[in-house]
Amino acid sequence: MCESNVYLKKGDSEELIMENVAAITPVSEGTFLLKGLLGESLKVKAIIEDINLMGHKITLKAL
Amino acid sequence: MCESNVYLKKGDSEELIMENVAAITPVSEGTFLLKGLLGESLKVKAIIEDINLMGHKITLKAL
Repeated sequence: MCESNVYLKKGDSEELIMENVAAITPVSEGTFLLKGLLGESLKVKAIIEDINLMGHKITLKAL
Repeated sequence: MCESNVYLKKGDSEELIMENVAAITPVSEGTFLLKGLLGESLKVKAIIEDINLMGHKITLKAL
């Protein structure tokens, strides 16, 4: 299984906002839609800060 | 192993630009640095179009 955990960075702090994310798609300028393995979804106003596929960690930076 | 294949979309065509990508990091506005499993790297002027972790496929759109 290759889903990742998605973290959201705000200033100096970083928060795990979704586990087992299966897909990430931009829905508009500065907004990403995260889709989880179990069908859950979450919209986040952020930009991509890092995609670490080996570490199963994707970091977004809040806008 | 959870690395992905990265495709670059230009207009209607889509090209596989790197296999076994381990990490993707923005290096400046509109430019991403792809790093491969074997240490290879590639800079691409593009935006993220889709990240499909289950399908091991990341699609960038050329700027």
